[in-house]
Amino acid sequence: MRTGERDQRAIWLDEDGWGVRVIDQRALPHGFRVLRLETAADAASAIREMAVRGAPLIGATGAYGVALAARAEPADRAPADAANLLKDARPTGANLAWAVDRVIGAVSEVPPARRAAAAYSEAARICQEDAAINRAIGEHGAELIAAEWERAGRRRRVEVLTHCNTGWLATVERGTALAAVYEAAEREIPLHVWVTETRPREQGAGLTAWELAQAGVPFTVIVDGAAGHLLQRRGADLVIVGTDRTSAGGDVANKIGTYPLALAARASEVPFYAAVPSPSIDWAIADGLAIPIEERDPAEVAAVTGLAPSGRVESVRVVPQGARVANWAFDVTPADLVSGLITERGVAQATSAGLAALFPERSPAGASNQA
Amino acid sequence: MRTGERDQRAIWLDEDGWGVRVIDQRALPHGFRVLRLETAADAASAIREMAVRGAPLIGATGAYGVALAARAEPADRAPADAANLLKDARPTGANLAWAVDRVIGAVSEVPPARRAAAAYSEAARICQEDAAINRAIGEHGAELIAAEWERAGRRRRVEVLTHCNTGWLATVERGTALAAVYEAAEREIPLHVWVTETRPREQGAGLTAWELAQAGVPFTVIVDGAAGHLLQRRGADLVIVGTDRTSAGGDVANKIGTYPLALAARASEVPFYAAVPSPSIDWAIADGLAIPIEERDPAEVAAVTGLAPSGRVESVRVVPQGARVANWAFDVTPADLVSGLITERGVAQATSAGLAALFPERSPAGASNQA
Repeated sequence: MRTGERDQRAIWLDEDGWGVRVIDQRALPHGFRVLRLETAADAASAIREMAVRGAPLIGATGAYGVALAARAEPADRAPADAANLLKDARPTGANLAWAVDRVIGAVSEVPPARRAAAAYSEAARICQEDAAINRAIGEHGAELIAAEWERAGRRRRVEVLTHCNTGWLATVERGTALAAVYEAAEREIPLHVWVTETRPREQGAGLTAWELAQAGVPFTVIVDGAAGHLLQRRGADLVIVGTDRTSAGGDVANKIGTYPLALAARASEVPFYAAVPSPSIDWAIADGLAIPIEERDPAEVAAVTGLAPSGRVESVRVVPQGARVANWAFDVTPADLVSGLITERGVAQATSAGLAALFPERSPAGASNQA
Repeated sequence: MRTGERDQRAIWLDEDGWGVRVIDQRALPHGFRVLRLETAADAASAIREMAVRGAPLIGATGAYGVALAARAEPADRAPADAANLLKDARPTGANLAWAVDRVIGAVSEVPPARRAAAAYSEAARICQEDAAINRAIGEHGAELIAAEWERAGRRRRVEVLTHCNTGWLATVERGTALAAVYEAAEREIPLHVWVTETRPREQGAGLTAWELAQAGVPFTVIVDGAAGHLLQRRGADLVIVGTDRTSAGGDVANKIGTYPLALAARASEVPFYAAVPSPSIDWAIADGLAIPIEERDPAEVAAVTGLAPSGRVESVRVVPQGARVANWAFDVTPADLVSGLITERGVAQATSAGLAALFPERSPAGASNQA
């Protein structure tokens, strides 16, 4: 995406061909800071501490983490050890293990001397594929927004509701759900985005608002609890969210607070879509309730980080000293609440059959055909 | 309620028989501060700025606001002018206009020299009635908690989910939904309360958590968006919330974010109750969607107030500079999502007939019988 003068990705290879640069998303929207990752441990820490976040970007960072390990020590166990470290950094998103395993696969048959180059190449390929996937998801998603515009007789702007951050900051480039918004805006479809703040970490208020402001797309931030009211009063034409992992049956694990949006959308007959790059699909899990839900540090809930009057970024505690806090990072929206899954191959019905129709090579029948 | 050494109400007449004391709830949970109100304008400002909040406490404060006006200037128009000022302070809650009108009614036929005394007496009566209503609501609500305990074979504690603050801070004494929790705890029913933080103003994280900690009731704070996940995984046995205004048909206007809780409770077949003191019932409104929804200062969403590392209470901005924000303070839960309305006369079905059965004197049929 363009930020100021330059085209910016959320992750890129540094000019020395070794280090990996990522935007430190903990600094946004009040500051802009870039980190250099030099080891697999750096990559794992950036993922765990959420300097990088968003399932596709976590995957890309994990891929480069294996490459960094292969560069430092190409001997037999080093990339595999790094892979385990990286995969443990965050448990819910599907892309991380997928990307790490891909790089491991790319180096496993390669002599140690060529492993680093093979790993870097595979990580770069994953990034290129991510950008292409997101471009396609944006196009399919924009069709849905265009259809709402037509339905409104082109008389008013389309109102889109989204949650968390699914823009270019969550991916290598362009984004998933927000890619549809960007694509629609480029097609000059008038639209406005309702942005839920997304407690506890405020990725909506902080990151999505920042991205949309940069892109010149009009938006309004609301608290998470207000989305039900908005939908009840028909303030949104459609909901588009992302996913961290989607089951083979179409259940969508995504940022905590997504499931209530889907319930409210259904109650008001507003379509609810998830943008689902295929690397986020877990073909081995049929029932989304089996997806592991990460529990994070209670401090994320107990305090809120923002810009203090002093001009410094500070965390302020919102609970009484010693209060017990729980912090599930994701929830699961059952497939029957999902109007469609926007994949790079088109919009799938949120069912096993719907996904299998678009990805026959991954469905049990398709897989056995190949056997 | 007992806080430390003393029994504490949220509002009380000062020893000079003139000023009215209220706890300044903006200071909690990080500090404890008491305000003295001496004029109707003081009372209106305390309501508008949310030094006092909670529909019953707003009602009591409004009642004393009229009394303060009658004391300052008992001439014909003064109490009525004050009444309009007070009623305009917040539009959604039903108790404010009800209480103000009651005090106006009590002074209207009284000669100016006795108006102040009559107004103070009526305000005190409203406070006494509020305490009695809440005591009764607590008893009826505790029966529902006791029933869940029996259903669990008394083998584990009852898990209660609540939203915002409905405790003694929201009323004159005891609370509404939290009165049920306090009553159940006094009956030694083991229980645990899930407290949604309640953005934007954090009445759950700040006030409910503070009250429960004071009372020794175990609790856990979660973000608003996490309640759906909790209910989906059957982490709560029942939901009890308060109300700012309930329609004659049983639709419940309450703090923003209540409606998604009701949707999630229904989806997981968890009972959802609203604690409804009869002064919160608007007998003139059949359809809850006609209840006016207050829109408050966007700054409440754009920034979060809490305790900074410096030990000072500060607000930190969570959106980018200039971001557009919307801030609806309430939403409406349709009656068909409500398992029951816990009134001071018992648990009513959330229907016109259900409310009319408990309040026959207010139903159209009952009213015409009296005519």
